[in-house]
Formats: sequence, C-alpha cells, structure tokens
Amino acid sequence: MRGQIQLLCATFAVLVMTSMAARPADDITPPSGYRNWFHVNTMIIDKASPLFESLGGMHSVHVNAVGEPALKKGGPYPDGSIFVTDLHDFSTVDGTTTEGKLKGIAVMVKDASKYAATGGWGFQFFIDADAKKPFVTDVVKQCFGCHEPQKTADYVYSTYIP
Amino acid sequence: MRGQIQLLCATFAVLVMTSMAARPADDITPPSGYRNWFHVNTMIIDKASPLFESLGGMHSVHVNAVGEPALKKGGPYPDGSIFVTDLHDFSTVDGTTTEGKLKGIAVMVKDASKYAATGGWGFQFFIDADAKKPFVTDVVKQCFGCHEPQKTADYVYSTYIP
Repeated sequence: MRGQIQLLCATFAVLVMTSMAARPADDITPPSGYRNWFHVNTMIIDKASPLFESLGGMHSVHVNAVGEPALKKGGPYPDGSIFVTDLHDFSTVDGTTTEGKLKGIAVMVKDASKYAATGGWGFQFFIDADAKKPFVTDVVKQCFGCHEPQKTADYVYSTYIP
Repeated sequence: MRGQIQLLCATFAVLVMTSMAARPADDITPPSGYRNWFHVNTMIIDKASPLFESLGGMHSVHVNAVGEPALKKGGPYPDGSIFVTDLHDFSTVDGTTTEGKLKGIAVMVKDASKYAATGGWGFQFFIDADAKKPFVTDVVKQCFGCHEPQKTADYVYSTYIP
C-alpha cells in the first residue's frame, strides 16, 4: 500500500505542472520500440481515484534490456537503463476494462553523471508520445521529489512481478 | 463492442472445461521470454462481469516477432506466429488497480498444416504457466468454436492499438 501511494505520488509529480522555474530535461527524447521491451506491469487509475483527472488511464510500464536484470534484483540500475510507461485511455463495460487510445509516455533514463542532481535519473513525459510535446518543466519539483524516498531501490517504484 | 464480446467468448471457451471428449494440443509448450515480445494490449475482467469466476484477472497480450507485423496490418499470420496472454490477479484500492500474482498463460500458435482443422492455430492454457498443467482438453470445443467467426482477421481478436 505504501508503495502504491508512493508510485501514485511519483507519477502525479511527473504529470502535474508546477509554477516553479522551468528546468526541463531537454536531452531526453521519446524512445522507440519500447513495446518490445520487458513488460513490467500494468496499472489503471479510474474515476474513483482523486488522481483521475490528472492521471486517469491505463499505465503499462516497460524497461529496456539494460535495466531488466536490475529490475529483477531490485536495483541498482546501470547507466543506459530506461523505463517507459505508456498511458492509454480505457473503457469499462459490464465489468470488462479494455485499452483505448495512447495519451502519452513517461520516460525515466539512468545516467549517473549527467543526472547526478536527481539520483542519476532524467525524467520526462511526452504528450501523445510526441517529441515536440514534453510536459515536464522542472524535474526536481515534478519528478525527483517523489522518487527520492525510494533511494534504496535506486529511486524506482516498480518491482518485479514474476 | 462486438469484438469485445467475441474476445470474451473466445477466452471463456479457452478456459472453461467441457465434458466433451479430450483432444488436447499436446505439442504446445509454454513459451519463454514472452514479456519481451510486443505488448499488444491489457484487459481486465472484474467482479462486475458474469465471467469473473472463470476469467477474472488482468490479461496482458503479447505477440512474438514473427506475428507482430501481421498484427499491425490485421493478419494473415505466418507460421511461427505466437500470441501469449498472461493472466494475473489484480487488486483495486481507492480507484487504483494494480497487478498481482500470475495465474496462468494462454497460448495460440500458428502452423497452417499442423493445425489445419482449427484455422491453422493451436491453442492451450497453462495454469501457473506450468508446462505440467495444461488446461485445454478439446481445442475445438474450448477455443476454435469462438475464434471461427473471426476468420477475416485470421481468427485473431486482438487488434493493433498504436
């Protein structure tokens, strides 16, 4: 439950715009082929959640081949590890929830020196998975603040579900 | 909606034991590495569904590299195409649904000559993803009967969601 709340907090922080000074991770671009990466898990946030307005959707988390072994042992992650969460609409009819249109992707990239100020991770969210629509303008305020308590797992909330 | 019902019907047929004479697809084994295959979609069947008892859970569908291009154009699928649906428990707390323990995997393998009697596809479900726990004993009654109407898409219900 603690992990779940922290995951929500982290994702919320990634998505919610703040009024703080902008500090974007301009060098991060939307990775291609992430749906062929290891499928970590899927999570849904529905209308019963207070986070629905900002975070509602079906979140499917993927990790690349560099990060996959680290996920399975709970970190730490080598440079080059990337997580992508693709966020889709969904609909529920008669107890069945099915996936809809892509809304965007959240990206988390490990580079210990480049992103030393944020635990070695860079963060970005791309609306419509479009490189021209980055959403995060201050990575500390919007992302790392909520990832920081997860230091023992190298700032990652996702865990391996066999 | 029609597709959704048909998908449910098909999956239901795969899972529900029948009293008909057994005709298992004994040659199918649980594929490894399917979580690194292309993630097709995720679907959840919850307690509000009449199918919950037999089918409840989070279904994540994957297709291998042989079948991925065919999925994207809506079929037909070449021999060697494989779909795997992994079925996990899930829990919902305060509007957030998270993935739980693996319950089993459904497998669909294309071999036009070997499985000519069932549209070129072999079917099996493995409880706990365990090769020693196959669930399907009559592939026509439990699987193909519901896939047959989907002939124009080479008997596949999943569609490509970009």
